[in-house]
Amino acid sequence: MLDLPPLVDHHCHGVVRGDLGLGSFEPYLTESNAPAAPGTTFFDTQTGFAVRRLCPPLLGLDAHCPSAHYLARRRELGAYESCRRLLRGAGIGTFLVDTGLPGDLTGPGELASAAGGTAHEIVRLESLAEQVADTSGTVEGLLANLGEAVHSAAATAIAFKSVAAYRHGLALAPEPPGPGEVRYAAGRWLAGRESGGRLTDPVLLRHLLWSAVATGLPLQLHTGFGDPDLRLDQADPALLTEFVRATAGLGTELVLLHGYPYHRQAAYLANVFPHVHTDVGLALTHTGARASAVLAEFLELAPFGKVLFSTDAYGLPELYVLGARLFTHALGRLLDEWVAEGAWSAADAERVASMIAAGNARRIYRLPDGG
Amino acid sequence: MLDLPPLVDHHCHGVVRGDLGLGSFEPYLTESNAPAAPGTTFFDTQTGFAVRRLCPPLLGLDAHCPSAHYLARRRELGAYESCRRLLRGAGIGTFLVDTGLPGDLTGPGELASAAGGTAHEIVRLESLAEQVADTSGTVEGLLANLGEAVHSAAATAIAFKSVAAYRHGLALAPEPPGPGEVRYAAGRWLAGRESGGRLTDPVLLRHLLWSAVATGLPLQLHTGFGDPDLRLDQADPALLTEFVRATAGLGTELVLLHGYPYHRQAAYLANVFPHVHTDVGLALTHTGARASAVLAEFLELAPFGKVLFSTDAYGLPELYVLGARLFTHALGRLLDEWVAEGAWSAADAERVASMIAAGNARRIYRLPDGG
Amino acid sequence: MLDLPPLVDHHCHGVVRGDLGLGSFEPYLTESNAPAAPGTTFFDTQTGFAVRRLCPPLLGLDAHCPSAHYLARRRELGAYESCRRLLRGAGIGTFLVDTGLPGDLTGPGELASAAGGTAHEIVRLESLAEQVADTSGTVEGLLANLGEAVHSAAATAIAFKSVAAYRHGLALAPEPPGPGEVRYAAGRWLAGRESGGRLTDPVLLRHLLWSAVATGLPLQLHTGFGDPDLRLDQADPALLTEFVRATAGLGTELVLLHGYPYHRQAAYLANVFPHVHTDVGLALTHTGARASAVLAEFLELAPFGKVLFSTDAYGLPELYVLGARLFTHALGRLLDEWVAEGAWSAADAERVASMIAAGNARRIYRLPDGG
Repeated sequence: MLDLPPLVDHHCHGVVRGDLGLGSFEPYLTESNAPAAPGTTFFDTQTGFAVRRLCPPLLGLDAHCPSAHYLARRRELGAYESCRRLLRGAGIGTFLVDTGLPGDLTGPGELASAAGGTAHEIVRLESLAEQVADTSGTVEGLLANLGEAVHSAAATAIAFKSVAAYRHGLALAPEPPGPGEVRYAAGRWLAGRESGGRLTDPVLLRHLLWSAVATGLPLQLHTGFGDPDLRLDQADPALLTEFVRATAGLGTELVLLHGYPYHRQAAYLANVFPHVHTDVGLALTHTGARASAVLAEFLELAPFGKVLFSTDAYGLPELYVLGARLFTHALGRLLDEWVAEGAWSAADAERVASMIAAGNARRIYRLPDGG
Repeated sequence: MLDLPPLVDHHCHGVVRGDLGLGSFEPYLTESNAPAAPGTTFFDTQTGFAVRRLCPPLLGLDAHCPSAHYLARRRELGAYESCRRLLRGAGIGTFLVDTGLPGDLTGPGELASAAGGTAHEIVRLESLAEQVADTSGTVEGLLANLGEAVHSAAATAIAFKSVAAYRHGLALAPEPPGPGEVRYAAGRWLAGRESGGRLTDPVLLRHLLWSAVATGLPLQLHTGFGDPDLRLDQADPALLTEFVRATAGLGTELVLLHGYPYHRQAAYLANVFPHVHTDVGLALTHTGARASAVLAEFLELAPFGKVLFSTDAYGLPELYVLGARLFTHALGRLLDEWVAEGAWSAADAERVASMIAAGNARRIYRLPDGG
Repeated sequence: MLDLPPLVDHHCHGVVRGDLGLGSFEPYLTESNAPAAPGTTFFDTQTGFAVRRLCPPLLGLDAHCPSAHYLARRRELGAYESCRRLLRGAGIGTFLVDTGLPGDLTGPGELASAAGGTAHEIVRLESLAEQVADTSGTVEGLLANLGEAVHSAAATAIAFKSVAAYRHGLALAPEPPGPGEVRYAAGRWLAGRESGGRLTDPVLLRHLLWSAVATGLPLQLHTGFGDPDLRLDQADPALLTEFVRATAGLGTELVLLHGYPYHRQAAYLANVFPHVHTDVGLALTHTGARASAVLAEFLELAPFGKVLFSTDAYGLPELYVLGARLFTHALGRLLDEWVAEGAWSAADAERVASMIAAGNARRIYRLPDGG
């Protein structure tokens, strides 16, 4: 077993507060926003099987017990206590929390306190812009307020995140849009928009990306699978190549999230561009027994100093357990194998494991000591 | 070894009737329509090696005997008896047969009888349209006859199949074409067409897809590698995303065939859209010793209730043996491994194996009991 | 361990002549042209770890010794002696050397002599055209000189190579450009060009490809990852499908280099088109401990008579060691596994290993006996 420092989860979300039954638990096991097909259940997935493997023992049950038993035990303990036990069982010390998702979710502080760790906020650009639009009446007001909102978020947030991948796709023009273009696009958006209307305009998405780049904070970019709004091939990180070139040398780090099934493309970009990093999160949670095989593909081209751990957990504390345990199992298994066959030295394996688990994130996000 | 029910092969073709020599056997080992390159043979492929591994024992020879010995033994037994022994050795109970390929091939009934199983017909849309066009003199006649042909096929067929992937590619407009568009395209096709001319017009391909969707029968869609007419990247199932969205909730199941090397994309679509299913057939037959590695990639994102077994066998009874044996070996190996390492419970492994081998297909194609 | 003939490295480059320190050695471990990101080093990659595993023992040190020790020992021995020891430790008998890279590199003869083998030249089309342009004053002169240069290269070279993938991308019109188009493009290039200016015009790139095809020599095409100038998705070999169709039956062999992460697409093209072959070189050197997993993916669809070994080594003699050792380890491991599980016979495994290591290249490049 690997001897790892407390993990830094560089990308996750909040946890739902209330109790969950079978019907309200199951939807969190998938990225789909539709119910499972008739005759099937999302428990019959790698994620569902991994929940049943890893979580029941943390609540005092046998691994692989039926999901109904597990959920009954969860209700018996109550949402608060279950969440506390699960989060503390995950082994995560630091949480970077994307707060841009809707719903009654725990914020960073509450999450950290339940887990016995520390937390920092990641600001989701599109959500920020939509909040600003809800309270701005004119184009000039919207753009001024947006600039101020990004600037003020940068003072407290640890990073920005963009979901342009599933608002428009990543085939975006790489350069910053001109001020006239931005004003025109903002006017069109405001005019056609009801409160709560989502931002999908490519000019405004680019304006947000470049506003974030200008702050110097790391910028997380969703790539690969995830939200079903996206068209998968339009989320291939290779489509970001010109944007990556355009932002080279500016001092802003880019972190390509998820990537699957284009994670080898993400690893390639991390190999050839100094300011690009790659995350192995979501891909492990959703592939369960296959996590080590998927992680191995990331570790082909990605320099080991540029690989980051996350859970991308959302809604269920169980998904923190999955993200963390599947990652440490998978990494431990690969490194054991490579050391056993002489491909890596044991000392290098220890060192790289610690870098991926925490050190790389500490460097890239300039995390304070012990936080 | 897995204890499986008789397999349901949800996508296959007929078998050639006559005896085959070296020159006439070899072309069936590949999807190429060209002879092997000078100095090479299609026996030197994963498929060729798997034939030599799995088939000689069924005809009383040693595994891996030279191909010339095998073919001599096959001729000695005769095509009929060899076919019977091979098909009965495959372990398939139910065959869903795409009858739209040309050549002197066994029909569903003959195949079922040789194999000691049952069979149902899948109607290939493009072949149906071409037959209708051969006997229709006017646009009105063609469209009326086509509508009637689809309607009447739906009364007896178990499913429809489209090969739009290698007639045009999958980058098709997702919505149904309007009646004027269809009439114009049909007129152009009829005018330019000699008897036997293939259907490649994207408007007519879409018209066929939507005609099939309207029947409520499951619709199989070729994706990924296969016929060399296609351009591989134009057969990426991710290109179907908008069509999948457009057909959601209509009650018609979509089954993405093959998919390789975009099978992770197919599995993603099966994960996020309730009416999408994914097939693991052709990819296993053509990857032989690698079948378990390829199957494992399917089983990352695909919900286990939406994965279907097929052989996609065509021409040679040997390809039924390969499809079935490589699948059961590969699945058995993966599940053994996952159970051994504690990732899955043994009971779940048994249950999922049975779902993929037969149960999912029985549910999706509404197969009668015992048939 | 496999009993292999001396390897034929069908695609490599020269070695730098002078001594190298840490700062000048490290950049050769990556395809990036930028320095490693702050806080990271290219030694912390699969390539770096493979260098530290495989090379120190050839210079009398322990595997996995610190890179500083290794480089000190290398300087102690001197560049010439280190190079000789490393090259002779690689087990390569024949080198096909692309001489189109700039820098103070050993030529084919010098490389062969240091390695104790034989060498042949591969002419890089774009470099040839740029040299011709440097000394041609008019469009007519340029095109006539270019025709003559290709013709005369064909008399001595063993093959041509194109890097159109990272000059324009592989989405090129498949047919040969017309003479008027070529003249117009050549004029525009000459007029806008300073000495040393690179060739990126798609018409001229196609003109070069078809000029090479006309000679009947094998044509190597860069595909997949490599030079950071490319956009990865524009280097997908599937984009070459129409060019492959257009060149079928002309008697010229096409060799798709590298391919990663689209190597399954390259293997597919080798499966369905007789004149297409696929190379496993660069992908192994850059994936180190993962080389057998990557090689296995090539060996799914690629007919075994169409798979070629290379190192794609450039600059460092160490990269010859990596390319050769990682290939023989990876191949040996796969074949051992396939034989052990009964999927392949031992005799087939020996035969296929020898084909990939040397025999296929000898046939395709029509290499003289013993050379």
